[in-house]
Amino acid sequence: MSRRGLLGLAVGGGVAGLAVGMGAGLTGGVALGRARAGEGANPVYEFFGEHQAGITTPVQDHLHFASFDMMPRTDRDDLISLLQDWSYAAARMTQGLEVSASGAVNGPAEAPPDDTGEALGLPAAGLTLTIGFGPGLFENEDGDRYGIASRRPAGLERLPAFLGDDLDPQASHGDLCIQACADDPQVAVHAIRNLSRIAFGRARLRWSQLGFGKTSRTTATQATPRNLFGFKDGTANILADDAAALADHVWVAADDEPAWMTGGSYLVARKIAMLIETWDRVRLSEQDTIIGRDKGEGAPLSGGDEFTAPDFHGSEIDANSHVRLAHPEQNGGVRILRRGYNYVDGNNALGRLDAGLFFLSYQRDPAQFIALQRRLSTDRMNEYIRHVGSGIWAIPAGAAPGSYVGAELFA
Amino acid sequence: MSRRGLLGLAVGGGVAGLAVGMGAGLTGGVALGRARAGEGANPVYEFFGEHQAGITTPVQDHLHFASFDMMPRTDRDDLISLLQDWSYAAARMTQGLEVSASGAVNGPAEAPPDDTGEALGLPAAGLTLTIGFGPGLFENEDGDRYGIASRRPAGLERLPAFLGDDLDPQASHGDLCIQACADDPQVAVHAIRNLSRIAFGRARLRWSQLGFGKTSRTTATQATPRNLFGFKDGTANILADDAAALADHVWVAADDEPAWMTGGSYLVARKIAMLIETWDRVRLSEQDTIIGRDKGEGAPLSGGDEFTAPDFHGSEIDANSHVRLAHPEQNGGVRILRRGYNYVDGNNALGRLDAGLFFLSYQRDPAQFIALQRRLSTDRMNEYIRHVGSGIWAIPAGAAPGSYVGAELFA
Ligand code: HEM
Ligand code: HEM
Repeated sequence: MSRRGLLGLAVGGGVAGLAVGMGAGLTGGVALGRARAGEGANPVYEFFGEHQAGITTPVQDHLHFASFDMMPRTDRDDLISLLQDWSYAAARMTQGLEVSASGAVNGPAEAPPDDTGEALGLPAAGLTLTIGFGPGLFENEDGDRYGIASRRPAGLERLPAFLGDDLDPQASHGDLCIQACADDPQVAVHAIRNLSRIAFGRARLRWSQLGFGKTSRTTATQATPRNLFGFKDGTANILADDAAALADHVWVAADDEPAWMTGGSYLVARKIAMLIETWDRVRLSEQDTIIGRDKGEGAPLSGGDEFTAPDFHGSEIDANSHVRLAHPEQNGGVRILRRGYNYVDGNNALGRLDAGLFFLSYQRDPAQFIALQRRLSTDRMNEYIRHVGSGIWAIPAGAAPGSYVGAELFA
Repeated sequence: MSRRGLLGLAVGGGVAGLAVGMGAGLTGGVALGRARAGEGANPVYEFFGEHQAGITTPVQDHLHFASFDMMPRTDRDDLISLLQDWSYAAARMTQGLEVSASGAVNGPAEAPPDDTGEALGLPAAGLTLTIGFGPGLFENEDGDRYGIASRRPAGLERLPAFLGDDLDPQASHGDLCIQACADDPQVAVHAIRNLSRIAFGRARLRWSQLGFGKTSRTTATQATPRNLFGFKDGTANILADDAAALADHVWVAADDEPAWMTGGSYLVARKIAMLIETWDRVRLSEQDTIIGRDKGEGAPLSGGDEFTAPDFHGSEIDANSHVRLAHPEQNGGVRILRRGYNYVDGNNALGRLDAGLFFLSYQRDPAQFIALQRRLSTDRMNEYIRHVGSGIWAIPAGAAPGSYVGAELFA
C-alpha cells in the first residue's frame, strides 16, 4: 500500500468528486443510505455542513473514539491527503455506504477489498464522524513538520495537571482524533477500523475507547440517561436547539482567534474511572448529597423536579456537591456541552469492574473546561473517581461539499 | 455486608416467594416489566422454564459475560444461597425489575441501595441471564468444598490444550459463569454488576468480557450478521425451531449422565483474537477460499445461495477451508449451537485493534466442541486468529418457578 493510501486519491481529487456525486441528494440532514430507514429508527446525518456532525447531533447509543499519531517523516502533503481521504470515506460511511465504490466485494478478486465488510447490509445507524487536531500536530519534538505551527490556536495545548490526575499515556493525547458515534456499535467500530486502515503509512492508532449508554443528551426529546453511579446525567446540558448558548459556549465565533477555527469547537476527552464498588456501599442520602440531586428523579436537593433550577442559597445543596461546583452560577457563567459515554474494560485482579465515564465535552475555548475542572478540585465525588486519560483537540468547522475537514488550516 | 449477601435471603426463602409473586403473570415468555414494550422492540424473556434462557433465545445485540471464582472458606450453604439469590435477582431483572423491591431509590436513605440504579427507566431489553458451573466448582486444589465432587459430569473438565492455544489465565476458566445478553448493553452491564455485588463474600469476578454485534443467529427471521472478517456468520447454525437438532446436539437428554443435567447443556467460551490488519491485506479470492464461502452472499463456493448446502465433492471448496473442516459431514455428524459476539478491547502498542470473536457454543457434550476444534487444527484461517481465552461450564436446566438454577445438583 502506498503512503497515499488505500483509496489512491490524489490531493484535491477524491473529495470534490464525492461532493458532486453526493451533495445533490442531501437535504435536511437525511440522504440516501445503503439501507435507508425512517429518521427515527435509523437516522442518516450529513457529513458536510457548517459545523461537524457529532457535536449537537442527538447523542447516539454507542461510541468508538480513536486517537492517532502521525507517522515519523510524514509531510504536509501526507497530512492533507489523509484528511481528504478521511473526509471522503467518512462522508460515504455516514451515508451508509462502503468506504469506496468497489467496497468489500465489488473490487478485483485478486486484490484486498477496500472495505473490511463487517457493516455490509447495516444501515447508517446515525453514524457521525468528528475529526480533531491535537496540539502535537502543530508542533512537537520533531518541530513544525506540517508548516502549521504558527496557526496553532493559543489555547490548544496539553491540559494542565489537575489535582488527583493519574493519567495513563496509553489513554491520553494524540495528534488527531476521530469520534465515531452510532446507534449500532458495529457501525462505529467499522468506521474507526476502516479510517485507521486508510491512514496506513501516514497516521497510526495511538489509543481507542469503546463506550455505550450515552451519559448525556443534546435534545429535550431524549430521556435523560443514567451514568454508572445510577444518577441521571445530562439534565443541565446545552441542547442542540439553544442557539444562543451554542454561540456563547460551544462554537468558535468569527471574531475569535484563529480565523480558520470559525464554526469549530474544542473537544476535551477525560477517561474517568469510577470506583463503583466503593460507591455502591455509600448510603443513598450521602449519594444524593455528593451529587446535589436526588437519585430517583434527578431533582436538585433544593426542591422541584428534574428541570427546576437548583437554588444554592439554602443549605440543602452541599457546598462541595458536584452540581453546585459545576454550575455556571459558581463559575462566572461558564458552560460546556457534555457528550460522554459509559465504559467497561473488563475487571481488575481484585474482581472489580474496570468501569467509568468516558467524558467528552465541547467548548468554544479550552479555558472553559480548565476552569470547571479546577473548580471541581473540592468535589465530594472525587473520592469515588480517578481521571486516568486526557486529551484535547481542535475540532474545525464542518467541511463544505467539495472540500475536506480542516481545509481552512492549509489555505 | 454479610456473607448471606445483600438481599438477605434465607436458604430456601426468597426464590419461592418471588416465584409466587411473579409466576402468576408469566405467559408465553412475556411478562409485565418495569417498562413493558411490544415483543418485537423490547422482548421480555421468562427466567424460569424447562431450559435456561439465553441459549436458543433469538441472539440479542450485546453481551456481558462474567466468570466467577468462589471465595476461599465458603461452604455448601454459601453456594446454595448464592444460587438462590442470583436466581431471585435474575428473575426480577430479566422482567425489567430492579434486583429487589426497594431497589435503587425506595429503600432507607441511611443504607446503600439494593440496586445500583443505572438501568432505572430502561426496559428489560430482552435480557437473559444464563448461569453455569465450571469444573473447579466440583473439585479443586482445596478439595470437594461443596460436597458435589461425585456429581461432576464426566466431560466437565478443563478443555485439552489445542494446537496454537495461547491462553491468558485472566480470560480463562472460572467456578461459575453468567452470560448476560440484552439488546441494550447498559442492561447487560447492570445485571452483571448487580449479580457480582450480590455475590459479595461468596464469589468474586474472575474475568469478564463485553461483546457486541452478535456473530450468530438462532432464528431464521434474524438476518445473518457479519463477523470482523466481514463474512456472514451463523448461516449453518442450529436454529431455535429445529427441535430434532436441539435434542440431538444441544440439550442433555434424560438418559445422559448425570441425571441432574437433564435439560441442560455445556457451554464453551473461547476468546479468539483476530489479526484483522493482516486479514485485511489478504486478497478477496483468498479470503473466500479460507472460509469456503463467498464474502458477498455467504454462498458456499460450490455454488448456490447462502442457504444452499455446500458440496465438498468438487474442488471449489478447499480441503482446509474453515467451513469444510467444521461441517458435520467431515465430523461424523457433530453439530453445535454457536452464539458468539465480536469484541474490541482497545488496541496494542503497534496501533492494531485488539479485536476478535468471543466464541460461545452450546452442546450436549463437551466432546462435540473438542472434536471440532481438533479438526480445525489444519484450518487455513488459523494464520489469522489466536485463541487467547478458554472456559467450560455445565449449564443446568432452567429453574422451575419456586426453585433456583442448579437445585437438582444439591437435591
Ligand atoms: C465520573 C465523573 C462525573 C460524573 C459521574 C458526573 C455526574 C454528573 C451528574 C449526575 C450531574 C447532574 C445532572 C446533569 O446536569 O447532567 C452532572 C452535572 C454536571 N457536570 Fe458532571 N460528572 C462527572 C464529571 C464531570 C466533569 C469532569 C465535568 C467538567 C469538568 C463535569 C461537569 C458538569 C457540569 C457542567 C454539570 C451541570 C451543572 C449544572 O449546570 O447544574 N462533570 N454531572
Ligand atoms: C475467529 C474464529 C472464527 C471465525 C471468524 C469463524 C467464522 C465462520 C464462518 C464465516 C462460517 C460460515 C457461516 C456459518 O455457517 O456460520 C463458520 C461456520 C462454522 N464455524 Fe466458525 N468461525 C470461527 C471459529 C470457529 C470455532 C472455534 C468453531 C468450533 C470449534 C467453529 C465452528 C463452526 C461451525 C460448526 C460452522 C458451520 C459449518 C457448517 O455446518 O457449514 N468456528 N465459521
